Amino acid sequence: MAELYVGLVHYPIYNKRMDVIASAVTNFDIHDIARTCRTYDVKQYYLIHPKEAQKQMIKKILHYWQEGYGKVYNPDRADALERVHWLEDIEAAAKDIESRTGQRPYIVTTDARIYPNTVSYSFMRKQLQEGEKPILLLFGTGFGIEAEVMKSFDYILEPVYGSCDYNHLCVRSAVAIILDRLAGEAWFEKQ
Amino acid sequence: MAELYVGLVHYPIYNKRMDVIASAVTNFDIHDIARTCRTYDVKQYYLIHPKEAQKQMIKKILHYWQEGYGKVYNPDRADALERVHWLEDIEAAAKDIESRTGQRPYIVTTDARIYPNTVSYSFMRKQLQEGEKPILLLFGTGFGIEAEVMKSFDYILEPVYGSCDYNHLCVRSAVAIILDRLAGEAWFEKQ
Repeated sequence: MAELYVGLVHYPIYNKRMDVIASAVTNFDIHDIARTCRTYDVKQYYLIHPKEAQKQMIKKILHYWQEGYGKVYNPDRADALERVHWLEDIEAAAKDIESRTGQRPYIVTTDARIYPNTVSYSFMRKQLQEGEKPILLLFGTGFGIEAEVMKSFDYILEPVYGSCDYNHLCVRSAVAIILDRLAGEAWFEKQ
Repeated sequence: MAELYVGLVHYPIYNKRMDVIASAVTNFDIHDIARTCRTYDVKQYYLIHPKEAQKQMIKKILHYWQEGYGKVYNPDRADALERVHWLEDIEAAAKDIESRTGQRPYIVTTDARIYPNTVSYSFMRKQLQEGEKPILLLFGTGFGIEAEVMKSFDYILEPVYGSCDYNHLCVRSAVAIILDRLAGEAWFEKQ
């Protein structure tokens, strides 16, 4: 079983007008995704942001749950938040995983478009179950991760389809669905 | 294919001390769950709350997206919010579905405990694909739906397991995972 890591990318991100920006951190992204990650035994959940002011805010929130009163008030929540860390860019996340595991991770993300290295959920689930190299699964905020950076990734997961052509899931729901497909119990093998 | 409906229940709900309460409506529950429901072609998403003040707040938010400037500002979001409605109790939701389809729905929910009528995700997915009776899938807020009311439901879905024993998903992530298991594309049949 390979180790799974998640990163939420706030730069370089497209906005509505396709300008490259750094997006703002959202408190619900921290909590909801931390709880989902903990449920699927994700080893670390990285909040990736290059800006000092956002780093300070993230660290303040995390401190409350990792060291402050949050730990006493809601230990289950603190348990999830313990695995959340700020890092300045995607490369720092890859390096952190390398220092923990001795191996550089596969870098994987999702996109609405199809690329030469687009793979299915079954492929990546098998990679996770049978592989040895850790996997860093990245999610973009805003309108997605900048195209040049996307090109450097090892695999792109197919877009998530529901049961119609509407595809505007929030990132929090997308993380939940994708982690369940990759690392959830095999409910589909059960009658 | 049976029609699928979702209800988010705010009463009767347990709080942390197991008192029965009416929980407060959360804006993220409205938006995130509406977008997930729209992705999985859920016909209506009911916000179930008995209190007048909460009803007024829900109606104000929905009006902005269904009739107000939200419709122009973000049509995709408005598309999802169009299917959201306030109702005062679970019975009103069942009656609304009956008036739309001519059939009383199966009422289904999830719980961490196992009941005589607990069923698997595969069973309910098949019911949805091959059945004719509509399905009303209820999610509790707070610490879950009151026990006596739970007894009146037709089916209880198994708890969601990730890949460890931590199970404190937020309701928004639980809805996303469960709708993908019941109504998502059959990604697990694909290599």
